[in-house]
Amino acid sequence: MKKNSILILLLTFITLSIYGQRKIVKLPNLPGYITLKCDFHIHTVFSDANVWPTVRIDEAVRDGLDALAFTDHLEYTPHKNYVPVDFNAAWKIGETYAKERNLILVHGAEITRKMPPGHFNALFISDASLILQDSVWDSFEAAIKQGAFLQWNHPGWKAQQPDGIPRMYDIHEKLIKKGWLHGVEFFNSNEYYPLVFKFAKDNNLTLTGNSDVHGVISEIYKEPDYNNRPMTLVFAKERTSDALKEAMFAGRTMVYFQDKLVGKEEYAKPFIYQCISVGKPYYENEKNLYFEVTNNSDVPFYLVNGIPDAPASITLAANSVTRIVINKKVAAPLVYDVKNVIIGENEVLKIELKY
Amino acid sequence: MKKNSILILLLTFITLSIYGQRKIVKLPNLPGYITLKCDFHIHTVFSDANVWPTVRIDEAVRDGLDALAFTDHLEYTPHKNYVPVDFNAAWKIGETYAKERNLILVHGAEITRKMPPGHFNALFISDASLILQDSVWDSFEAAIKQGAFLQWNHPGWKAQQPDGIPRMYDIHEKLIKKGWLHGVEFFNSNEYYPLVFKFAKDNNLTLTGNSDVHGVISEIYKEPDYNNRPMTLVFAKERTSDALKEAMFAGRTMVYFQDKLVGKEEYAKPFIYQCISVGKPYYENEKNLYFEVTNNSDVPFYLVNGIPDAPASITLAANSVTRIVINKKVAAPLVYDVKNVIIGENEVLKIELKY
Amino acid sequence: MKKNSILILLLTFITLSIYGQRKIVKLPNLPGYITLKCDFHIHTVFSDANVWPTVRIDEAVRDGLDALAFTDHLEYTPHKNYVPVDFNAAWKIGETYAKERNLILVHGAEITRKMPPGHFNALFISDASLILQDSVWDSFEAAIKQGAFLQWNHPGWKAQQPDGIPRMYDIHEKLIKKGWLHGVEFFNSNEYYPLVFKFAKDNNLTLTGNSDVHGVISEIYKEPDYNNRPMTLVFAKERTSDALKEAMFAGRTMVYFQDKLVGKEEYAKPFIYQCISVGKPYYENEKNLYFEVTNNSDVPFYLVNGIPDAPASITLAANSVTRIVINKKVAAPLVYDVKNVIIGENEVLKIELKY
Amino acid sequence: MKKNSILILLLTFITLSIYGQRKIVKLPNLPGYITLKCDFHIHTVFSDANVWPTVRIDEAVRDGLDALAFTDHLEYTPHKNYVPVDFNAAWKIGETYAKERNLILVHGAEITRKMPPGHFNALFISDASLILQDSVWDSFEAAIKQGAFLQWNHPGWKAQQPDGIPRMYDIHEKLIKKGWLHGVEFFNSNEYYPLVFKFAKDNNLTLTGNSDVHGVISEIYKEPDYNNRPMTLVFAKERTSDALKEAMFAGRTMVYFQDKLVGKEEYAKPFIYQCISVGKPYYENEKNLYFEVTNNSDVPFYLVNGIPDAPASITLAANSVTRIVINKKVAAPLVYDVKNVIIGENEVLKIELKY
Repeated sequence: MKKNSILILLLTFITLSIYGQRKIVKLPNLPGYITLKCDFHIHTVFSDANVWPTVRIDEAVRDGLDALAFTDHLEYTPHKNYVPVDFNAAWKIGETYAKERNLILVHGAEITRKMPPGHFNALFISDASLILQDSVWDSFEAAIKQGAFLQWNHPGWKAQQPDGIPRMYDIHEKLIKKGWLHGVEFFNSNEYYPLVFKFAKDNNLTLTGNSDVHGVISEIYKEPDYNNRPMTLVFAKERTSDALKEAMFAGRTMVYFQDKLVGKEEYAKPFIYQCISVGKPYYENEKNLYFEVTNNSDVPFYLVNGIPDAPASITLAANSVTRIVINKKVAAPLVYDVKNVIIGENEVLKIELKY
Repeated sequence: MKKNSILILLLTFITLSIYGQRKIVKLPNLPGYITLKCDFHIHTVFSDANVWPTVRIDEAVRDGLDALAFTDHLEYTPHKNYVPVDFNAAWKIGETYAKERNLILVHGAEITRKMPPGHFNALFISDASLILQDSVWDSFEAAIKQGAFLQWNHPGWKAQQPDGIPRMYDIHEKLIKKGWLHGVEFFNSNEYYPLVFKFAKDNNLTLTGNSDVHGVISEIYKEPDYNNRPMTLVFAKERTSDALKEAMFAGRTMVYFQDKLVGKEEYAKPFIYQCISVGKPYYENEKNLYFEVTNNSDVPFYLVNGIPDAPASITLAANSVTRIVINKKVAAPLVYDVKNVIIGENEVLKIELKY
Repeated sequence: MKKNSILILLLTFITLSIYGQRKIVKLPNLPGYITLKCDFHIHTVFSDANVWPTVRIDEAVRDGLDALAFTDHLEYTPHKNYVPVDFNAAWKIGETYAKERNLILVHGAEITRKMPPGHFNALFISDASLILQDSVWDSFEAAIKQGAFLQWNHPGWKAQQPDGIPRMYDIHEKLIKKGWLHGVEFFNSNEYYPLVFKFAKDNNLTLTGNSDVHGVISEIYKEPDYNNRPMTLVFAKERTSDALKEAMFAGRTMVYFQDKLVGKEEYAKPFIYQCISVGKPYYENEKNLYFEVTNNSDVPFYLVNGIPDAPASITLAANSVTRIVINKKVAAPLVYDVKNVIIGENEVLKIELKY
Repeated sequence: MKKNSILILLLTFITLSIYGQRKIVKLPNLPGYITLKCDFHIHTVFSDANVWPTVRIDEAVRDGLDALAFTDHLEYTPHKNYVPVDFNAAWKIGETYAKERNLILVHGAEITRKMPPGHFNALFISDASLILQDSVWDSFEAAIKQGAFLQWNHPGWKAQQPDGIPRMYDIHEKLIKKGWLHGVEFFNSNEYYPLVFKFAKDNNLTLTGNSDVHGVISEIYKEPDYNNRPMTLVFAKERTSDALKEAMFAGRTMVYFQDKLVGKEEYAKPFIYQCISVGKPYYENEKNLYFEVTNNSDVPFYLVNGIPDAPASITLAANSVTRIVINKKVAAPLVYDVKNVIIGENEVLKIELKY
């Protein structure tokens, strides 16, 4: 029997569902920018995760991402008895597969140390194997030499920071002083670290939010507990790897997870106003005025702390039109805190409904 | 104990969830028109259904409708031992309730006879009680006097037409000749009648699709079996009752149920091209060209009968971007039949993907 | 046209789905008793709710109940302009319909006053109209004369008790002293009142938990927020109305809602041990012992406060087998608090896993 | 920095959800036997699938299986550039992991040839590497030497049998004559082959049904399309690997997928009667008699071809009590065909409802 005839027959295994679909995640662009949905922290069978790299790309398509990064651990490869260590393997396997699916695949690696300094992703690199070094500083330097965007991962991860509170150690200060630290995770898997917002503001770091997935995305982020994985929203000039990298270094991001949108006010404010629109009053009676707010995005907005004679709180459900009834006596502008749009360590966005 | 203090306390019963949300049904407008989502066949406790009229309005809000009609049977009121017959009751109860929720409530009634002529909805009427008459012709005349839009309901309903095939009897011909018949149901609850398309074309009748609901909408039209109730899509000049009525008499409708869109080609064609957009090729290799089609609507489109070297069939999933891979040898235009967009008794829409 | 031919044709409207299915709610019996799943607080279109009585029976079938009570308000009938007041109407309409579906239908009424004394359901009555009286004491007396089980409804309802804390007023003490108060709601719709457990213990009252539904059950109690409506579990000698009544007066109940089971320890303890079974160890290594606990019920059990070297907390998911791994050094009995099985105002059940 | 401190920190990665839950699949035992739920056809990253072996075990726990077999292709290992070929790797990785989870892990391999003879699983083997041979007969012999149960996989798979109709070639006849072929797949992934029932009957082969999974189980077999993967139900004397093997060689199986139960009548009949119980009539009126059928299993049963005056068809929904209404005139036994219980190539089970 000839080997190639086996091969031909078996190829049919992998031709199923060749025309995959990318879900449209309804999040708006900002004027002048395209919003790229990204996950910059993903593991495969080549470090300590359980799936083949192509699975990660299929998952990203399904979740409507524009970009993803493979970031296998350099210092932790528990499958090595069966899978020889190759820090560029996932990238090599995924490169064409991603292109065919119109996804931007970012080459990355995770520098994995105990705290301090903890874990760091080197993103937009060219050769991960050069970054594995005995000294963590040598690792940092090798990454920077490749033009890497360096992201401090999960600064408040309890396995490394038992009280869950992120801390800046000398080594982090030093990294920042050298200009080698570019980003920091606000969301990591199902955790988030409010204090990271302060770190980012004080040191001009880019906020990111990522899955750090080891298992299967659809088994972790599923209804009723979750409606999407954590994402970094990057406001890029175009949908290319270069434009993505430029925007990341420029700090133009927000992060999104579990109905929470987090980012600087300069991005958050126009973003929300792209999501919602307020209609003219459509009905009134002796006492009340009725108008509607349309939310065309996948994110519900929870408005709280309303003024007197207006509703104390309003939920603008995702992809819905919400009816608002206010007393005609209301004179002042209808200003609300948006509970789930975070623009500082302890600060949420304020918006006005102009009906 | 004073009665009015009871009343005040009890009013709190009905103030729950005062700020309801209308789901956005993602269906496009046509140039120059607004697409109104409508259900013109709805029963309440005032004939043989099981819910209070306000429930129907809440259901319509939830389903993202713009308009609904109460059409209780005139000749069948099985609850009359407990609920006195009042053919305008549902309308009176619902009128303000609908206005407060920015819904167009259409006053209607169902003339209910055995076949022929069967059942007819009189829509946009002013007083249902005048339409109940011993002679069905007197009923028709009373409706027409009120300016009614007369809709022939479920012409192929098996309880009246055991073989399920709609038939034009003399009385229908006569109605048409007098100009008294304006519309006909293509969809009724979970049934549909292909032959109705021919009746509509031959006699210039407006196509409608409605729920004819007697139970609870959310218990009937639910996943996994259904994703929405049957709807009449009306292309109106504005979102008002008058504009709705004008469009209905002018025949500017399509009907929508279970992934099926049905209507004249003059509406169906621009409608689909408002739903989808075809991207430029984003990748190619030696053999193939890759491009994407974005479907921004809630309706999946099933493309079939592809040309050689192109995919034989393609599903453009709702709210998704679909990747298309074609052989570079393809020279002819990429034309497909859209299996679920029906533009004639036995005819589906053809579209071209211009990449 | 003859009227009766219309009738015959139209009867087909109501013959749909004649063979309905009752969901099996997996809750065990107690030795010597059958566990009847009941809802003793239900409204219809005949007071201030929105559905016809038969809808309530269909809902009960779907939810797997054994018994339900119609308890329309006597003093609050806001639909009376359209639906003449008839306090026995729901019962008359439902009686045969329930029998055909093998459900026990309890005749009831809600005595509806401001606090004190608040609202009370008279259950197992024969004529609701006799219970409407100017004086609430006359109402109580009329109910008791009919052999009613008198249930104090939602004692901590914020519309009547703004701090949400139930209070015993003189009138309640007096009712108890006369032996006229038999039960009290621990759960009402989505609320619950821990202090009610104390009232029940001190005064020998039967605990109940009910929906107090006004809208549509399936729209209120649905995933992901709810997996069932509140229920009273009654341990009856047989599945009859008389046995149900006997058990209610004897106080043999638990109440169940949202993963919470509430009742006296004498019922709660054997109930849980009927739900779960502990297997023998199936595996061990040098350090640990492995065994399984099977939970054959629809209720998950949340075990907390484990002893040293055993898991601190364990979730025994519903309809699942849970693997337990304990250190071989564990010597003491494996005792846990079951966080969601409440046996007193501030007390949860303790159980031992005997592997 | 010391390596072992990294290790300790990182071990926390893999300690999440240590107390996993096995879903209870509600399928009854047969008198004298335990029903083991099994999947005998599973791939991993060590041939052409996309997940690590432990993922398969976690999936099996979640799906409530008792046993699973790793059956990677011997002749098709497309990941070999990154993952060195090791036909026992999955087994070695999974052995203890399965034991800890109380699952029976069967060592297997897939002999992978074009048709004829097609693909075969060798199950209950000890060393897969010895079975890879140039000649397929040498492969068969090596498997048999290890005491293998030899299963013919997907005989009607269209990639090998374009018309979808399974065919016995000389080589299969020869295998059977030698007593080397023991089982045959009736279900494989989402396909099934009715003719296989004839092959099994004529040649005394054991029926099996398996997933042949390459991707992620939960992404393939999910609502609304699927409620479980295909399974082989094995009637074993006890829940051990040896008893499982004995039962497989003895042919005591049924197969289960998508509401279909398939097997010899001698197993199917008692199996169904363990699932359902028929109650005594609970109500009657002048015309009809009412009784209930309880279905305590996860399988709905579709009864068709009822006798006159009884319902023509009845659905006994899973985990539900179904109400049956029959005309009192019914005299003959209530016999039905159970449309989804298949006991021959073109034969379904008949049952009688004795009320």
